[in-house]
Amino acid sequence: MSGDNEATRGFWPLVSFHPKVDFGDAVGLEKIFKGNCDRIAGFLIVPIQGEGGVIIPPYGYLKSVRDLCTKYNILMVDDGIQSGLARSGRMLACDWEEVRPDVVILGKALGGGVIPVSAVLADKDIMLCIRPGEQGSTFGCNPLASAVAIASLDVIRDERLAERFAQMGEEVRNQLNKIQPKYPNYIKEVRGRGLFNAVELNSKNLSPVCAYDICLKLKERGVLIKPTHDAIIRLTPPLSMSLEELPEGSKAISYFFEHFLP
Amino acid sequence: MSGDNEATRGFWPLVSFHPKVDFGDAVGLEKIFKGNCDRIAGFLIVPIQGEGGVIIPPYGYLKSVRDLCTKYNILMVDDGIQSGLARSGRMLACDWEEVRPDVVILGKALGGGVIPVSAVLADKDIMLCIRPGEQGSTFGCNPLASAVAIASLDVIRDERLAERFAQMGEEVRNQLNKIQPKYPNYIKEVRGRGLFNAVELNSKNLSPVCAYDICLKLKERGVLIKPTHDAIIRLTPPLSMSLEELPEGSKAISYFFEHFLP
Repeated sequence: MSGDNEATRGFWPLVSFHPKVDFGDAVGLEKIFKGNCDRIAGFLIVPIQGEGGVIIPPYGYLKSVRDLCTKYNILMVDDGIQSGLARSGRMLACDWEEVRPDVVILGKALGGGVIPVSAVLADKDIMLCIRPGEQGSTFGCNPLASAVAIASLDVIRDERLAERFAQMGEEVRNQLNKIQPKYPNYIKEVRGRGLFNAVELNSKNLSPVCAYDICLKLKERGVLIKPTHDAIIRLTPPLSMSLEELPEGSKAISYFFEHFLP
Repeated sequence: MSGDNEATRGFWPLVSFHPKVDFGDAVGLEKIFKGNCDRIAGFLIVPIQGEGGVIIPPYGYLKSVRDLCTKYNILMVDDGIQSGLARSGRMLACDWEEVRPDVVILGKALGGGVIPVSAVLADKDIMLCIRPGEQGSTFGCNPLASAVAIASLDVIRDERLAERFAQMGEEVRNQLNKIQPKYPNYIKEVRGRGLFNAVELNSKNLSPVCAYDICLKLKERGVLIKPTHDAIIRLTPPLSMSLEELPEGSKAISYFFEHFLP
């Protein structure tokens, strides 16, 4: 289903009839819904694009999606795997617009960095469309994974991680925004929510260096970040990071621009 | 891709052009390969059908598949998730015909009952078609899961579990074959390899009782087995089962036929 050509290249034929719409385009979404609502079961949305480069939707978009899904009787499915569980500074990124999806997909932080586990949330009227015995998997209902997931949720709630990450995220962006004016030709934009942040670079001015090279250099300084496309570096530190460790990342990025640029 | 209508019902449209062939039909397979070898990258085969009812292919089929895949330059992909890692009485079920697939998919026993983990094996000329950085996943390369997988493989090798299960499987089928003559109207066939066994029942004579009911009754006696379709019960005990625990299962099945049949 991915809209990323790099992810689908060589994997043809794809499943047909999965209309896509530009992120943030509520008008385009309604056009698709209007003509096809009898053929569309659900609309899968990431409330913050991760692989796309930590793209935050225009304010009001999530609310529009919720209204359109309700109007056309289409399930709103929130892929909260990256953005969910406090990462964005809210328990779910949809909480930024106080929107309640019909289905939520969770993973990543759910395993607390210890165990692979994911989950699907929905109300009974949706969930019980699948009757007992109809659906199973080898690793479903794994007792150890379930215990880890519950413990992770307890930590996220008890330690108020969503609030904490909202604050830490502001601090991250403050630090990065202090670096930006020194390198206006290289750094296009700093953006993000909570601990889900990105630095978009100017690939033309940076060339032949690309985001991947920067990530490799930062790795040498103990900072693990991940590029997406040629010119975006994503900063998604572990949720266990302390406030004191924050400046390390921005110092390392600053160091890179000072010492390694063309 | 499943050929099981119960698994695909309600999930349309499916990905197009996945030709299927009857299990064990090498002539049908060559017909498909001959007409489409430029469009087929791989042939995915389960060397023993699990969900289908523990169906063993006719001897020579796996060898034919290997020869045809080589002849038409199509990858032979062994789904060894259920049948692999000693379950069938060989390390891989393909070993029953001394056939080497190009790609092997493993799971289940790989996690030793402790952790969810799966793996894909292939030689370098295939594996390195995916270059470093091109493919990743949140739970890939999980250090704990990798340690568990390695430990599981050590146990399977060091305790010679494949040989042990070949012997235990014979014992299972001996015991079940002793029950069969007492209930010829109910039990059609006992079949299997290693600890991958099935009892096929005569659903007409058994009605209104079905395989699912039998599994529920056996659960009350502490024996966990799983039905497939209406009339087949699958016996796939944990690989940690001792030889002494084996008779419990057959006793419980015997008890069911004695006390609960119409």
